[in-house]
Amino acid sequence: MTVGSQAGSTPGLVLATANQHKLIELTRILAASHVDVDVRGLADFPGAPEVQETGSTFAENALLKAHAVAAFTGLPAVADDSGLCVDALNGMPGVLSARWSGRHGDDAANLRLVLAQISDVPEERRGAQFVCAAALVLPDGQEHVSEGVVRGSLAREPRGQNGFGYDPIFLPVNSTLTTAEMDPADKDKISHRGRALRALAPVIAALIG
Amino acid sequence: MTVGSQAGSTPGLVLATANQHKLIELTRILAASHVDVDVRGLADFPGAPEVQETGSTFAENALLKAHAVAAFTGLPAVADDSGLCVDALNGMPGVLSARWSGRHGDDAANLRLVLAQISDVPEERRGAQFVCAAALVLPDGQEHVSEGVVRGSLAREPRGQNGFGYDPIFLPVNSTLTTAEMDPADKDKISHRGRALRALAPVIAALIG
Repeated sequence: MTVGSQAGSTPGLVLATANQHKLIELTRILAASHVDVDVRGLADFPGAPEVQETGSTFAENALLKAHAVAAFTGLPAVADDSGLCVDALNGMPGVLSARWSGRHGDDAANLRLVLAQISDVPEERRGAQFVCAAALVLPDGQEHVSEGVVRGSLAREPRGQNGFGYDPIFLPVNSTLTTAEMDPADKDKISHRGRALRALAPVIAALIG
Repeated sequence: MTVGSQAGSTPGLVLATANQHKLIELTRILAASHVDVDVRGLADFPGAPEVQETGSTFAENALLKAHAVAAFTGLPAVADDSGLCVDALNGMPGVLSARWSGRHGDDAANLRLVLAQISDVPEERRGAQFVCAAALVLPDGQEHVSEGVVRGSLAREPRGQNGFGYDPIFLPVNSTLTTAEMDPADKDKISHRGRALRALAPVIAALIG
């Protein structure tokens, strides 16, 4: 894989996200999957459309974003939509994870709100899962979606400095560390985003590589 | 029905709620149901236990409260647990309706948070319902529960001064008024609390009246 936009390189694929944290994770996971295509970020395509995430599922939103960016750039686009699904909140915040507090992208406020909402929920009902849908859309409109899930439970206080979003309160099954305390490579091995992207990697390799 | 605690009256039933809005609604609905028992509030029983609403359903929480108050007072107790179930939030806030923002009983903050969370949700997916479970528990532990539901959708801005909780944003099916704009007697006819209490009224009459 070649990262960036070196002069003379053939652009292979655009990662359709404005979220820098996601851009880093997606790039890192594709690199570890040995997908042999050039990977670019949206920063190389000024004026790319901002897509409203109006879908009611992760897959719908990932496809909305990938379609918009493939159409704008004329290149294959990969997008993810992901979130935290809390059992005691009937699977929410779900697709609203990034705007749960009403303030879009305010990770700290979103996390604090979830902790407050389930503060009375006993240990045995604090189960949760991270879910990611990863979509690949080709310029001709062809689309592929894969989904990755990691089960776990929610800590009562945030811990750890790595990752982003709800990572500081998410304890994967059989882990004593939150995903914000894990080494990034260890996190990718089990994470929702790692699982979804690795499932998509052979499709990317076959269609673009 | 006799309301209050007049000297010489036989106490018949305790309404197990510390919420003054609910006390008024429950009393009004029982009065309209012609249940011929004395109705008292918790104010007549200093030291009555504060019950943690740890149940995962409305019925569980209503029973928790009614059992605690029946045991403390030695009188039949009626409690309700109720909330707003929003389709686009997978049925939440549900049992967390009164503490959705993390601030227990802050109606304005809870309502604002729901509006913010579904601000991008289109008209056709703004369905919601109010649900109420009403529980009667006798001093011997005998219990009865009934449930009432009213379907509707959520307005984009609060309207109306009556009622409480999420009333200012709830539009019952076939109504152009929010439940906070409706006349209280009209609201009781269709409300979740009205339906649950009227279903329980014959049981109250048979066992206590």
